[in-house]
Amino acid sequence: MSGNRNGARALLEAARSMGADICFANPGTTELTLVHALEHVPAIRPVLGLFEGVCTGAADGYARVSGRVALTLLHLGPGFANGIANLHNARRAHSPIVNIIGDHATWHLRFDAPLTSDIESLADPVSGAVVRLASADTIDADVATAFDVATAAPGAVTTIIAPTDIMDAPAPASTRPAAARRPAAPVSDRAIAAAAAVIRDAGQRILLLGGDALDERGLRAAQRIAAATGARLVMEPYPAIVSLGGDLPRIERQAYFPDDVLRQFGDAQVVLAGARPPISYFGYEGQPSELVDAARLTVLGAAGDDNAAALEALADRLGAAAVAATRADSEPAAPGERLTGDAIVEELIAQLPEDAVISLEGSTLGGPYLRQAHRAARHRVMTNTGGAIGQGLPCAVGAALAAPGSRIVALQSDGSGHYTLQALWTMARERLPVTVIIAANHRYGILQTELARADVPLDDAAVARLTRLDNPRADWTALAAGYGVPALRVDTPAAFAAALRRGLAENGPLLIQAELP
Amino acid sequence: MSGNRNGARALLEAARSMGADICFANPGTTELTLVHALEHVPAIRPVLGLFEGVCTGAADGYARVSGRVALTLLHLGPGFANGIANLHNARRAHSPIVNIIGDHATWHLRFDAPLTSDIESLADPVSGAVVRLASADTIDADVATAFDVATAAPGAVTTIIAPTDIMDAPAPASTRPAAARRPAAPVSDRAIAAAAAVIRDAGQRILLLGGDALDERGLRAAQRIAAATGARLVMEPYPAIVSLGGDLPRIERQAYFPDDVLRQFGDAQVVLAGARPPISYFGYEGQPSELVDAARLTVLGAAGDDNAAALEALADRLGAAAVAATRADSEPAAPGERLTGDAIVEELIAQLPEDAVISLEGSTLGGPYLRQAHRAARHRVMTNTGGAIGQGLPCAVGAALAAPGSRIVALQSDGSGHYTLQALWTMARERLPVTVIIAANHRYGILQTELARADVPLDDAAVARLTRLDNPRADWTALAAGYGVPALRVDTPAAFAAALRRGLAENGPLLIQAELP
Repeated sequence: MSGNRNGARALLEAARSMGADICFANPGTTELTLVHALEHVPAIRPVLGLFEGVCTGAADGYARVSGRVALTLLHLGPGFANGIANLHNARRAHSPIVNIIGDHATWHLRFDAPLTSDIESLADPVSGAVVRLASADTIDADVATAFDVATAAPGAVTTIIAPTDIMDAPAPASTRPAAARRPAAPVSDRAIAAAAAVIRDAGQRILLLGGDALDERGLRAAQRIAAATGARLVMEPYPAIVSLGGDLPRIERQAYFPDDVLRQFGDAQVVLAGARPPISYFGYEGQPSELVDAARLTVLGAAGDDNAAALEALADRLGAAAVAATRADSEPAAPGERLTGDAIVEELIAQLPEDAVISLEGSTLGGPYLRQAHRAARHRVMTNTGGAIGQGLPCAVGAALAAPGSRIVALQSDGSGHYTLQALWTMARERLPVTVIIAANHRYGILQTELARADVPLDDAAVARLTRLDNPRADWTALAAGYGVPALRVDTPAAFAAALRRGLAENGPLLIQAELP
Repeated sequence: MSGNRNGARALLEAARSMGADICFANPGTTELTLVHALEHVPAIRPVLGLFEGVCTGAADGYARVSGRVALTLLHLGPGFANGIANLHNARRAHSPIVNIIGDHATWHLRFDAPLTSDIESLADPVSGAVVRLASADTIDADVATAFDVATAAPGAVTTIIAPTDIMDAPAPASTRPAAARRPAAPVSDRAIAAAAAVIRDAGQRILLLGGDALDERGLRAAQRIAAATGARLVMEPYPAIVSLGGDLPRIERQAYFPDDVLRQFGDAQVVLAGARPPISYFGYEGQPSELVDAARLTVLGAAGDDNAAALEALADRLGAAAVAATRADSEPAAPGERLTGDAIVEELIAQLPEDAVISLEGSTLGGPYLRQAHRAARHRVMTNTGGAIGQGLPCAVGAALAAPGSRIVALQSDGSGHYTLQALWTMARERLPVTVIIAANHRYGILQTELARADVPLDDAAVARLTRLDNPRADWTALAAGYGVPALRVDTPAAFAAALRRGLAENGPLLIQAELP
């Protein structure tokens, strides 16, 4: 068969040898040689999405949960463009993703055929590297470049542009050895000593944790430090993935609005471990962008550093003893008559199985959930790292494929759910154990919150037209059924509890439309 | 109130004075000052889409049908990115669209907050001009620049980036007079003489019509020329909008595959009126990109020229008499037992009301329809100009808002329909008289056609996984119901005919899922 090896097969074989085992695809004509070549590289699993944002979001979820590289296969500039929003989030999450984008034959490009577009200009903003294949003979090296950048700690999105004539051309076999994801950089003794000096200090001290500091190892070390020194543990506001629950420590989450962050951080000294300095999500007139003075910031480790090891070294230097594993006290709220975000969270905390992964999008359930997550069984939570909405359902798809034994729960606001609802179809097609909880309040809640803070009347006609989704109210049970996902609509805590029990027992997806006031 | 005029209101007032009367919006936090300002500029109608691709596709449909500028209001880089695919098509359609994209406050940008992105890099590939507002004092001039480029014949997409602090700042009132869409350039006598010489010649001659040559005036002139000289009339393969039916002439459509185009054009001399020289849609090994030798091409007019007037002048110069208006013969096919694309087309031809607008996407119904459209009542058809899929349903939304008295029919393939199905919600919300016909064959037909031409077995596992949509089969009636649109599923010609009668009588949208083999 080696006599038949073409560029497409060489590309996929090289990607396979460098660790790729899945490809989230929405191909078009310029990708058909690659589609056919997937036949010869069966160790790369093709997963179809009905929309490119499903593919890129799924790749992100897969990379976050597995730590492995995920491929996407997308169609020219416009098809790729549909995947940019979730790649924006993946870039912020440092997810190792390699996009493969077909392009016209090199000799056809200059005729500006209808689908011709400036793929580089579109891909650059979300890509750590954009590699345009120039010859079938150098595919191996070009793919290695894309993987090198994608797998360098802390991880990156990269893009390969693959012209059809190069995919069709005879190509040599790959000679590269398999590449491993490259390790994080060790943190210097000096940085550890500096952080120790701050943490030993009297007064308020906060350990602000992000990235790999939010994995189990990092959190256990942080817990030792907190127990020994009284430093507070705060997580970055939008972690790519954080371990929570079981006997892991309860940690605060950095607040959203700048005034809340200012109150939360007070005049504390802040040690950063894998987190960026606190900044305002948006700029508000009269409020600062930087929410902690540089003089009060100490960097233990940045993204790409081995923050978990640095926290262990810091704990050792502080003489912090191991902390006995204890589960957080359960303080269940009395169930009410009305279904609220808090009621959903309480029930989920009670029922969530061990090792679940939660894909969380939207503030309706996101805020309440992360305040209570420490009381649930051990699990992981992915949040929206970049603010591009439409992440939640696709990320759940990728998580389910990355962690086959685990229950996935998508805690999804309705407004953001609409952007990539086609993910439901892939859940049904792949029979993924995803329990989708739609917080259906039929409005853009975050926009109404912002408008209210700015004293804008929510009933003004244009404001109402652009922030209310209640005319008509989407019926998510019908949308789910349309894509082959069974669904229930509930509006009481008891009905929600029963629906959740059923969902968590399903051997595939189930959607619960939770009607909220 | 003028004391309260801020940048957002100044921007919208300037846009209004330059002709904008509608804004397809999916705003986020950085656009809220603009949302609030819409309150003060009620002559600009805000229309909400649940997804940005719905907004941009609707703007395109609105611009094509009305000829007027459509605004979009989109959220930063990632939100805008979701609208790029349909802007790619709009760019190819020369639709006058002005995108307004909010951005962080100028002083907040450098902190690289989560949603920060390179908006210029994303917008450039689809924009004739990208204008970043630098001061509230110059908004008027900046908006004028965007409108000037958008409205210069043949029309363009342009983009305004509006930082929040400039939207919030006090701003002077607009002093610009209303701008009109600028006229197309007249074609020179020399070009008309050259075209006349070719058309007078013996042998095969083809008038290849595109852009404004496909409006009623252009077509009537072309009809005179064809009748007087025997020249064949061919339309560009993907017109932005073409008038068809009634007593307008039957015209061939340029074929898709290069070998078919070569056969179709033979050794004819080709006169271009508003159309580009025939090129291959994709590049195929061993087939040319340019399908008619340059020596056989004569340009009467290009995009941006007044091709309709040029065709009239050409007809006059050729001494072509007026053609008596006659309707094409109706040659109805005998209705069969099975529902096929041809059966759908026949029924639609029979029932289509006068002055309808058809939004056509996908080859399953697109090819058959355009072969028969001359037999229907007078109507207009929009096709997918740029090949970015997900155009059909949003374009139908825009068409309905642009032509309130007209029936809109979306002839939509199922594969491409999934990309922007959220358009159904806006149809329900705005009670738009759109009859959606989904050609449900549950596969990517065009990809299977291409693969079969390349002798790739369609049953190969990876190929089947990435081209078949039958596991599960989407239930479009449920998807439509989820978004508030009534729907019917049919699988016989009689049931389709009844459903179509009902749909065309509805005072709002109806979706017909036509099951095809």
